[in-house]
Amino acid sequence: MVSVSKGEQTRCRIVDCALSLARTMGLEQVSIGVLSERLKLSKSGVFAHFGGKEELQIAVLDETEARFIETVYRPTLATPRGLSRVRKLFDGWIHFGCCDCDVCHHCPCQCEPRRQGGCLLISSSAEFDDKPGPVREHLRDQILRLREGMVRVLDGCVQTGEFRPDVDTQLLAMQIHGLVLAVHLDVRLLGHQNAFANARRSLDVLLQTAAPLSTH
Amino acid sequence: MVSVSKGEQTRCRIVDCALSLARTMGLEQVSIGVLSERLKLSKSGVFAHFGGKEELQIAVLDETEARFIETVYRPTLATPRGLSRVRKLFDGWIHFGCCDCDVCHHCPCQCEPRRQGGCLLISSSAEFDDKPGPVREHLRDQILRLREGMVRVLDGCVQTGEFRPDVDTQLLAMQIHGLVLAVHLDVRLLGHQNAFANARRSLDVLLQTAAPLSTH
Repeated sequence: MVSVSKGEQTRCRIVDCALSLARTMGLEQVSIGVLSERLKLSKSGVFAHFGGKEELQIAVLDETEARFIETVYRPTLATPRGLSRVRKLFDGWIHFGCCDCDVCHHCPCQCEPRRQGGCLLISSSAEFDDKPGPVREHLRDQILRLREGMVRVLDGCVQTGEFRPDVDTQLLAMQIHGLVLAVHLDVRLLGHQNAFANARRSLDVLLQTAAPLSTH
Repeated sequence: MVSVSKGEQTRCRIVDCALSLARTMGLEQVSIGVLSERLKLSKSGVFAHFGGKEELQIAVLDETEARFIETVYRPTLATPRGLSRVRKLFDGWIHFGCCDCDVCHHCPCQCEPRRQGGCLLISSSAEFDDKPGPVREHLRDQILRLREGMVRVLDGCVQTGEFRPDVDTQLLAMQIHGLVLAVHLDVRLLGHQNAFANARRSLDVLLQTAAPLSTH
């Protein structure tokens, strides 16, 4: 059993509350003032853990990435290398932003947790792409790591012979990332009931473009 | 020559300023107070044109859609129906969010205008998907119209015989929309110099999946 100090517990509570807030209101709305009010802590108490708004926003992004690695990326490593691992990663990724909306409630995967708001990494990308500074740079590095993670999993399909050796896996990762963004939009704004099924069909179309020519 | 009243001119100035602000700061940051300060108008003067913040936000979204139709969609209708029209629409769409960033400056298309900030329809989708109300509903209808516009152009390829008759053009439009979202991210957050070229290559991959089998 790992012993966690009171200070660490408080820090976790602050980050968890900030993450919930950021998922629905946007990362820019996360401030030390709002959190101290919601958590019934003094401003100086919150400030002591982070030092400033940008450090707090970065901590929230780090927590999001840690949850992505824990709930989406790591489980894929238990799946055999190749196409099945790509499908597992994609399925986890499109459900990472699962929420309490109508489409997600009817999603047969029964993914948890169903929290308000979508994927913070997606919403923050649109929110911070015009705001130079440490938060934007941090987020950029995170998105690059996510993309690189997908490239590595795709490279596994070249090694298993399920992809042609000349497949540009960087390009394919970009196309798959596009599907993730499209399904996030289709679920969360457009409310398309068949968004997840469409995403899986679309992934198959993309994977087929990389298959050895004899299987076409 | 069309005569424009002073009132209409002022309304245009307000919407134009609000649009510039929204492209970099987010649509939620657009308020009557900020605009009156920037344009040296009284708050009541701005209020008289819109009545409230939501009406102003909707006017900004309408202006964005009008510009999309004028600069992206309408020119595609002058291109022959079929694949060339799809490519024209896609090219216009990925450049609609063109800005003053490093990647856009080196884009060979020399698209104009180069303004700060990306595509408002993309950034607002992430910003408003969790905010029930008239602005979200308005934006949802706009995105559906954009998607439907792409479906119509894709249907043209079935009519010209460049696509198989059984192609699901709704699904293909979703996949192409995903590419638009991915290139927006790659240009604006990741700063990938080859983002536009990658987008065109990826479009060709998707179009090929819909081609008659004999051309595979």
